[in-house]
Amino acid sequence: MTEKTMDKIVALSKGRGFVYPGSEIYGGLANSWDYGPLGVELKNNIKKAWWKRFVQESPYNVGLDSAILMNPEVWVASGHVGGFSDPLMDCKDCKSRFRADKLVEDDMTLKGAEVASADGMKEDELMKYIEDNGIVCPKCGKKNFTSIRKFNLMFKTFMGITEDSKNEVYLRPETAQGIFVNFKSVARTTRKKVPFGIAQIGKSFRNEITPGNFIFRTREFEQAELEFFCKPGTDLEWFAFWKDYCMKFLLDLGLTAEYVRMRDHKPEELSFYSAGTSDIEYKFPFGWGELWGIADRTSYDLTQHINHSNEDLSYVDPVTNEKYIPYCVEPSVGVDRLFLTFLVDSYEEETLENGEERNVLKLHPALAPFKAAVLPLSKKLSDKALEVYGQLSKHFMVDYDEAGSIGKRYRREDEIGTPFCITVDFDTLEDNTVTIRDRDTMEQIRLSVYEVADYISRKLEF
Amino acid sequence: MTEKTMDKIVALSKGRGFVYPGSEIYGGLANSWDYGPLGVELKNNIKKAWWKRFVQESPYNVGLDSAILMNPEVWVASGHVGGFSDPLMDCKDCKSRFRADKLVEDDMTLKGAEVASADGMKEDELMKYIEDNGIVCPKCGKKNFTSIRKFNLMFKTFMGITEDSKNEVYLRPETAQGIFVNFKSVARTTRKKVPFGIAQIGKSFRNEITPGNFIFRTREFEQAELEFFCKPGTDLEWFAFWKDYCMKFLLDLGLTAEYVRMRDHKPEELSFYSAGTSDIEYKFPFGWGELWGIADRTSYDLTQHINHSNEDLSYVDPVTNEKYIPYCVEPSVGVDRLFLTFLVDSYEEETLENGEERNVLKLHPALAPFKAAVLPLSKKLSDKALEVYGQLSKHFMVDYDEAGSIGKRYRREDEIGTPFCITVDFDTLEDNTVTIRDRDTMEQIRLSVYEVADYISRKLEF
Repeated sequence: MTEKTMDKIVALSKGRGFVYPGSEIYGGLANSWDYGPLGVELKNNIKKAWWKRFVQESPYNVGLDSAILMNPEVWVASGHVGGFSDPLMDCKDCKSRFRADKLVEDDMTLKGAEVASADGMKEDELMKYIEDNGIVCPKCGKKNFTSIRKFNLMFKTFMGITEDSKNEVYLRPETAQGIFVNFKSVARTTRKKVPFGIAQIGKSFRNEITPGNFIFRTREFEQAELEFFCKPGTDLEWFAFWKDYCMKFLLDLGLTAEYVRMRDHKPEELSFYSAGTSDIEYKFPFGWGELWGIADRTSYDLTQHINHSNEDLSYVDPVTNEKYIPYCVEPSVGVDRLFLTFLVDSYEEETLENGEERNVLKLHPALAPFKAAVLPLSKKLSDKALEVYGQLSKHFMVDYDEAGSIGKRYRREDEIGTPFCITVDFDTLEDNTVTIRDRDTMEQIRLSVYEVADYISRKLEF
Repeated sequence: MTEKTMDKIVALSKGRGFVYPGSEIYGGLANSWDYGPLGVELKNNIKKAWWKRFVQESPYNVGLDSAILMNPEVWVASGHVGGFSDPLMDCKDCKSRFRADKLVEDDMTLKGAEVASADGMKEDELMKYIEDNGIVCPKCGKKNFTSIRKFNLMFKTFMGITEDSKNEVYLRPETAQGIFVNFKSVARTTRKKVPFGIAQIGKSFRNEITPGNFIFRTREFEQAELEFFCKPGTDLEWFAFWKDYCMKFLLDLGLTAEYVRMRDHKPEELSFYSAGTSDIEYKFPFGWGELWGIADRTSYDLTQHINHSNEDLSYVDPVTNEKYIPYCVEPSVGVDRLFLTFLVDSYEEETLENGEERNVLKLHPALAPFKAAVLPLSKKLSDKALEVYGQLSKHFMVDYDEAGSIGKRYRREDEIGTPFCITVDFDTLEDNTVTIRDRDTMEQIRLSVYEVADYISRKLEF
């Protein structure tokens, strides 16, 4: 069995152009990453798959693309100005800085807690846990912490020509609020009736104290969020519906079932307004990590915006004339985490029957960066091979490689997950047929050049 | 002929869900905009079309998605920290603030200059023009300006836990530099040989003093940039190649030829390092505006990064062993501007033969938000119509509408550019055929339900 380590995944990412360290020639920038030629394709394919399922094929949902920079009042209403902060404490001896909740969770894990979560613990509870359990500074081993101070995670900048508080704006820490403030406009212009959802993909920014685990937690990241509005009382049904829907999305894209689990939050973990929250977790090389959060947020967000904006965001049922503030179910997933998940999950090291070894990314063809690679058996066949490349690349992303032995070229394509290798040989010049090799079975079939685009397109369906 | 005004375009955008004012329920945020359910589809389709032509179908180019937040040294090297600023001056009497270059350009326009451009004019030249031409304050009419001060256009924020200069980072003002700093990594991992290009789509931010004209100039905007690296001496050929390529892209997507022009910059307008720059301009309701900038940037950017990073970003030709710093041709376009261009260009008000009026967006089917709308003739046909909707929405975005007369529904779909309306009637229950109406010709044909997806898919080709 393949031993999957983060080192291998990072090395593959950097070596083949999935993910490079950000600003690398200038020594980088704390845990920032750039998606390379293969990475941008995989990431775009993940976003397209999500959009297909959550917008295109859903009779309930519509899309949105709201701005990153919003009126700062939005973040007062949402609670982010007041409450979106990390509890920080310093070691007075060695001057290191820590997140108090992480210290507590690490201690819980060490003591074998089944769920090591400090979510929902208040500052005094964190402090009490730390004192009661005699937690020491992980750096120097002393028990000499400062008290906890709150550090807001929103990036702040200034819009306009003076840098004063009047011009302070934030980089959004989540895409969700862009949906809530547009709820009324979307309902009006689409004439959608509750229940309906608004879906959005976009960048968010959080000034995390401890980003890490490659692209698992970064300060700049991409979210895919759905806010699904429904009638109060129907929310738990929809909560169950979207939990299943998200899980099905992952499994349909080929994620290994035994490495995915649904974890329902216990009542004491829930935010005060939430009627239910579940995380879909994946077993990464560094342990189980949250992939998708699905929450029943009741009418909390719309109510906050009603109170702060003085706009009436309630809904009137066109049939019953009943007026209410819709409840909201929110499935929220990080695109970069999905990327890491699919990369890790599809990574395999195999020993073939002939004893050869190969690394292969068993990505769903819908996700693979290249759908096919065109490989001429001889450089004398370049013209014909480029003709085939030209025809196919009208339909999907195609690689072209004429360097090295065919076996080496297969290995290179296996390693980046290309599902089909198309070999152009001297027979191709005679009868216009090519050989198609399947990445996973390594079996080959012969097809007319004219049939190839359709044959592969059908395999991309998801 | 349709009189196209910005008011009509803005009203359509807001009324049908293409573009809403940003943070509207909080009184907005200076010229920020949110893309609604139809807008996000049109914008995504424009990005997909660009990616298809500039990455997928190009044997030369590969994609990239670099981070918005980069090491600040990048912007020192690129010249943005030192030189990316607006020349501002205040009226001492009424305290209004102006861009000196805009005052000069407005005066040039007033005096009937063929090209009213202050690009490349230095501060003292601007000041001299203002004094020589007796330019007065547009607000109060006085001639009492302060001297010119430079105002840097980059948004600044802080990464990490203290807000001091050590932690200062910028929101990128262009995506291009993310490409230059990754030049070596991309060349290494893709094994691409010069000439080759790196393409990227992503958000950029400029703290403009005078954003405006709807989404034409905004502080947060999306760019689609290609940096094409070639051997010095071949750059002017490639410059011509990409100028044609960009123009063809626009015309293939149906842009009206007489409203597009290529404007070559005069030698005195060029940046000191540029061997040639041309703008593709479009005739907006407010006048000709820059849409696409295509520039031969010589080896300027790579040389700057070589000097600042001490990395060797030169290229060694694998055949001749010749070593050189590649020259770079950059076609750079704003996605939001492309959006505005296609929206304006496709907007038509028509009087039909029967005297009825209709508004129609004659968007290329590849760009239209919905590719088709399913319209049951009677509510009794909902089940069958939803079945058709379900089948088609596996392939592309489909609208569904059962409210109001069929004529009204046609008008609603025409107005948002849906190229095909599919009517489900009582015959459909018998023979499984539907009527397909063409948006532009308004002609109808009858097809089997099974043929519809293929029929429409073929029309989407671009």
